[in-house]
Amino acid sequence: MKNTLGSSVAVTIFGESHGECIGAVIDGLAPGIKIDEDFIAHQLTLRRPAGKTGTKRVEKDDFRIVSGVFGGKTTGTPLCIIIPNENVKSADYEAFSGLVRPGHADYAANCKYHGFEDYRGAGHFSGRLTAALVAAGAVAISALKEKGILIGTHIARCAGIDDANFTDYGKDIEKLNSMNFAVLDDKAANDMKAAIEKAAAEGDSVGGILETAITGLEPGIGEPWFDTVEGMLSRALFSIPAVKGVQFGGAFEKTDLKGSEYNDPFVIKDGKIQTVTNNNAGINGGITNGMPVIFGCAVKPTPSIFKEQKTVDINKMENSEIRIQGRHDPAIIHRARVVVDSVAALVICDMLAGRYGTDYLGE
Amino acid sequence: MKNTLGSSVAVTIFGESHGECIGAVIDGLAPGIKIDEDFIAHQLTLRRPAGKTGTKRVEKDDFRIVSGVFGGKTTGTPLCIIIPNENVKSADYEAFSGLVRPGHADYAANCKYHGFEDYRGAGHFSGRLTAALVAAGAVAISALKEKGILIGTHIARCAGIDDANFTDYGKDIEKLNSMNFAVLDDKAANDMKAAIEKAAAEGDSVGGILETAITGLEPGIGEPWFDTVEGMLSRALFSIPAVKGVQFGGAFEKTDLKGSEYNDPFVIKDGKIQTVTNNNAGINGGITNGMPVIFGCAVKPTPSIFKEQKTVDINKMENSEIRIQGRHDPAIIHRARVVVDSVAALVICDMLAGRYGTDYLGE
Amino acid sequence: MKNTLGSSVAVTIFGESHGECIGAVIDGLAPGIKIDEDFIAHQLTLRRPAGKTGTKRVEKDDFRIVSGVFGGKTTGTPLCIIIPNENVKSADYEAFSGLVRPGHADYAANCKYHGFEDYRGAGHFSGRLTAALVAAGAVAISALKEKGILIGTHIARCAGIDDANFTDYGKDIEKLNSMNFAVLDDKAANDMKAAIEKAAAEGDSVGGILETAITGLEPGIGEPWFDTVEGMLSRALFSIPAVKGVQFGGAFEKTDLKGSEYNDPFVIKDGKIQTVTNNNAGINGGITNGMPVIFGCAVKPTPSIFKEQKTVDINKMENSEIRIQGRHDPAIIHRARVVVDSVAALVICDMLAGRYGTDYLGE
Amino acid sequence: MKNTLGSSVAVTIFGESHGECIGAVIDGLAPGIKIDEDFIAHQLTLRRPAGKTGTKRVEKDDFRIVSGVFGGKTTGTPLCIIIPNENVKSADYEAFSGLVRPGHADYAANCKYHGFEDYRGAGHFSGRLTAALVAAGAVAISALKEKGILIGTHIARCAGIDDANFTDYGKDIEKLNSMNFAVLDDKAANDMKAAIEKAAAEGDSVGGILETAITGLEPGIGEPWFDTVEGMLSRALFSIPAVKGVQFGGAFEKTDLKGSEYNDPFVIKDGKIQTVTNNNAGINGGITNGMPVIFGCAVKPTPSIFKEQKTVDINKMENSEIRIQGRHDPAIIHRARVVVDSVAALVICDMLAGRYGTDYLGE
Repeated sequence: MKNTLGSSVAVTIFGESHGECIGAVIDGLAPGIKIDEDFIAHQLTLRRPAGKTGTKRVEKDDFRIVSGVFGGKTTGTPLCIIIPNENVKSADYEAFSGLVRPGHADYAANCKYHGFEDYRGAGHFSGRLTAALVAAGAVAISALKEKGILIGTHIARCAGIDDANFTDYGKDIEKLNSMNFAVLDDKAANDMKAAIEKAAAEGDSVGGILETAITGLEPGIGEPWFDTVEGMLSRALFSIPAVKGVQFGGAFEKTDLKGSEYNDPFVIKDGKIQTVTNNNAGINGGITNGMPVIFGCAVKPTPSIFKEQKTVDINKMENSEIRIQGRHDPAIIHRARVVVDSVAALVICDMLAGRYGTDYLGE
Repeated sequence: MKNTLGSSVAVTIFGESHGECIGAVIDGLAPGIKIDEDFIAHQLTLRRPAGKTGTKRVEKDDFRIVSGVFGGKTTGTPLCIIIPNENVKSADYEAFSGLVRPGHADYAANCKYHGFEDYRGAGHFSGRLTAALVAAGAVAISALKEKGILIGTHIARCAGIDDANFTDYGKDIEKLNSMNFAVLDDKAANDMKAAIEKAAAEGDSVGGILETAITGLEPGIGEPWFDTVEGMLSRALFSIPAVKGVQFGGAFEKTDLKGSEYNDPFVIKDGKIQTVTNNNAGINGGITNGMPVIFGCAVKPTPSIFKEQKTVDINKMENSEIRIQGRHDPAIIHRARVVVDSVAALVICDMLAGRYGTDYLGE
Repeated sequence: MKNTLGSSVAVTIFGESHGECIGAVIDGLAPGIKIDEDFIAHQLTLRRPAGKTGTKRVEKDDFRIVSGVFGGKTTGTPLCIIIPNENVKSADYEAFSGLVRPGHADYAANCKYHGFEDYRGAGHFSGRLTAALVAAGAVAISALKEKGILIGTHIARCAGIDDANFTDYGKDIEKLNSMNFAVLDDKAANDMKAAIEKAAAEGDSVGGILETAITGLEPGIGEPWFDTVEGMLSRALFSIPAVKGVQFGGAFEKTDLKGSEYNDPFVIKDGKIQTVTNNNAGINGGITNGMPVIFGCAVKPTPSIFKEQKTVDINKMENSEIRIQGRHDPAIIHRARVVVDSVAALVICDMLAGRYGTDYLGE
Repeated sequence: MKNTLGSSVAVTIFGESHGECIGAVIDGLAPGIKIDEDFIAHQLTLRRPAGKTGTKRVEKDDFRIVSGVFGGKTTGTPLCIIIPNENVKSADYEAFSGLVRPGHADYAANCKYHGFEDYRGAGHFSGRLTAALVAAGAVAISALKEKGILIGTHIARCAGIDDANFTDYGKDIEKLNSMNFAVLDDKAANDMKAAIEKAAAEGDSVGGILETAITGLEPGIGEPWFDTVEGMLSRALFSIPAVKGVQFGGAFEKTDLKGSEYNDPFVIKDGKIQTVTNNNAGINGGITNGMPVIFGCAVKPTPSIFKEQKTVDINKMENSEIRIQGRHDPAIIHRARVVVDSVAALVICDMLAGRYGTDYLGE
């Protein structure tokens, strides 16, 4: 059991919210992948909260690649990205109050680490660590793009408001990847933002569903058992704080369908074998079939709310109340979007390097 | 990328539908776990189709433990279970027709294995291999029971019909584990069976949602990133043929909730820290919090249907039709139930052995 | 910690000396590797003891490939080879005497497995399990040969008698692979055999050094740290019972050399970059340089001797004596040779599949 | 294939000789291990060259633990140690000359990484990276000491000069761990130093054998196949630049012994089961037997020498000569000693965490 994702391409993340820095080490990257620092910065910006719908904590998110890159390209040896922690408020350094926050990892972490955990600002559990995943993922996304593999995510539902569906994957993905609030339909976007602001005003928070498309994958990737495409993606996606469900092709909404409605008939189109529908989300038997891989992540409402909540003081072992202070988001779904893209890209790089060899993505 | 599940307790499965046998090797089991061959047989029976709602292919499912057990207990060295294939119809051995079945792995497998795959009866992709998982899982389930950890699954929804919810985990799990058709509410069970028979009569198939509860887990199990409880369970669950979605605590239905509704307040009850609600499904920050772990699997309708379907002849590369012959289930959700329990048990054993050491489950 | 070798190509072995069978599962083999059952049988024969210099236990070593092969070629899914145990003497089934054999795993195993281990005939520790490695290795050796990669081992030293050195790797390897007693020099072979027979007559045993050459490896294989060629080979080689030392290029004999004598100057020869000498054994910085990979294994004298030995009765916790009965070898070095070739081949297949992708060896 | 050591306790190293920094991430450490920064600094000093027998490049070796430690103790989450590179000479930044150094990784790395490698000062292959291993290993050594497990290494042979043998492990290890030049016999130490200086004066280099003892290990640690104690240690040890051979209990010198001489009879001594001799080096069947684990590493002479050497210009693909400039050691064996201790400690921590659980070393 480890804090490492992947085997052929393996990412290890480290750091705590209030430590010196966070970071990621990516091992197994092909030599010769071009590093686009502007793109990494762009991706970090998408993750960074901003404006009314975000937390007020704004960080510079400076990052430094300290190894594994030479002459602007990957060397093939471990690439380490470091993101210094700035803007850490000293008042946060108080002794642990004993009050575990509902919906947070405080209590579970205390049981696991026996009180040795860095409890400040959620420590190693902080959503802050997803910045390391986003930086690492940016390298993966760039490498995949060179191979014609695109990844894009939209907020399919937030606070009960539905976005439109994908209509043209190529165009939609391009559009989404340039948006701060990744919603295909403008009206839905405005309604979602209004709902988030309303929740904020109430000291509350909202969640939703992210839907992701990956296009350009060759058929034949994945394993029949355990290292299925669904299994490998979901293992990674459940690492993203607040993700509590992962479905492929809208599976939970389609469980009432009959086999004759759900099966995706094969057809030759444009000289290629395709399926007429894509309920199986580009995956049959755990293996890609050449159609877009489509998955959804259920994102729970942000656990940090400003209403008073019942909880336990684990130092005194007595029932108590907590009112969370500080800078927090009334929603993180719009920020989680780029994290989903990032971990998905890392998983796909791992699968491709396993199948086609360690040089594949750098060729 | 491998056909192996787990690291501290690792299961590798092998075999094809029409080969000599299928089997599983479990490595990393603690020495001294009692082997109950009757229970293994019982579990295999739950997976075996029977009666009107099942396929007509009936197998003896004899199994032999050929290593790793001595004097009725595990030795601590790799345990290999072999399940011979019987009742293989010779007519199935025909040359590959070129017609890939919609919703099946035929085409994806052909792309992955370049035509070297054993295509007979779905080969290594056959649901038949889940018998090896069930046999291996039975050992895990027994070992967990000795530690007070119980696992049970019901068909929460099938063909649009909802079962009742869990009310008393202990009693419900015990009841479910003795049932062939694991539904808590009798009326719902009958309605589901009728719907399955109706689909069968139409040459069609149905799917649904399985819901599973794991009770008795100590708080503090799991990792904050990647090897989260959600991630490890989902990676395994997506191996089960037809599972296309995994959610914890009904996440997809709860995405409209506010944080104040979703967060699970902590409270001291019976001298123990518990949560009032359990929307987080016993897991905070990827780590158990001592509450029951609850998850749902979306099971797609069985892809083998008897209606004519459009498909492609990949030998001739032309559009064609297929009408599937033979013995097949109009639903596999009631059989998949015990597979879910089995892989969940194997994952939990792996996590416990990692956390508490390799001897833990045998002590 | 597992009984599995490799990651891209992974071998798991199972079984005990006195169980129903032993076997190996190989996962990650490329699809389309031709299976030569005669060659597998040939390799098993090389491992099988025969004549005066071997034990009297002769087994048929029947093997069955029960999965992963279709139409005479690998499918790409897990290949399981089973070797039934025959000729198991019932008298061996006695209760554990409490007397742990010096130089054997009896005591260490008892500490590890707390008495649950199958102690009969060394159980899972039996040299018998190397038959599974040899069968699996035969598949690897065949696949490598198709890529121009050859492996051969000779007894470089036995009972104080030295063999000649390799002179022409191609011819020497071909010759060795057809010999039962793999010694390049006939006179040395006869002297070694005489020494082994003499030890047998005295109820004693002898050891020696095996030297192996692998030719045809491309430069650039291996990792700079941890998964070095030396590290990966040695980890596997130390699994072979009685191997207690592994050196590359005769390292232990060359520690007195100066850098100017040891360094291997590069030179262009036949249009290729080669080294003049090969003290580094084809490996620089953990990575192949295109020269033959040469390594030696120190093989301790067989621990099963017929002289009385001091030991402890661990049941009574008192000092005692033991006189080992039964069928045993006065030397296993000539049989271990093919095991060395086998595990080396499996490691090389793993490294090649990692570097060039999972299809590489089947193309 | 990865630059990661271990599974339960896993170390990943990153960095290049002329980059911003090098470092290590250790994942899987128990929570609650006390961090002694003075001891880490002490260990780094032992690795640092000094005086006449060392290179003139002196570095401050400042290190920073940037994650995984809170309140002076490990948290249980990934611990990252960063060691900045200082004193990097700008003249070293020249374009790659095309001349590959004999005995170095230059050519092999160029084949593996296709010219994208950071060639400056050996890049990721630099011995400089062992500082990261030493820093990480210091944490492991401290944790093991708390459990009564001690590790010590002496230069058993250098430039043809033999040191004395271990006589009292406890005292010898304590003495060695405080010495800069770890030789038990003073006369031998002086002779070795003189030989190293003589080699330096000739522009040449020397090698030798390091011998290591690990005491205090419980019996029962290790696996029978593949993850044997010998296999796991050797895989790690071969990562240390210049190590080309690993033997347990002096195996290469003992291959002429008879079984009756080599077997280690068991005896009850001080109420404990021990062996009279320790030729098997504390390991039977891959598993510890409670006796000290003893191993030797053959260290080749440093490849950086100042004599002119034949080599190839791989840019021009023609034969050429090279004369290495700069700061280099005429021997690295005395510095490699602490690296051996470090990686051995990391391997043992990994094995203990696997066997006894992730909390074991922090309790």
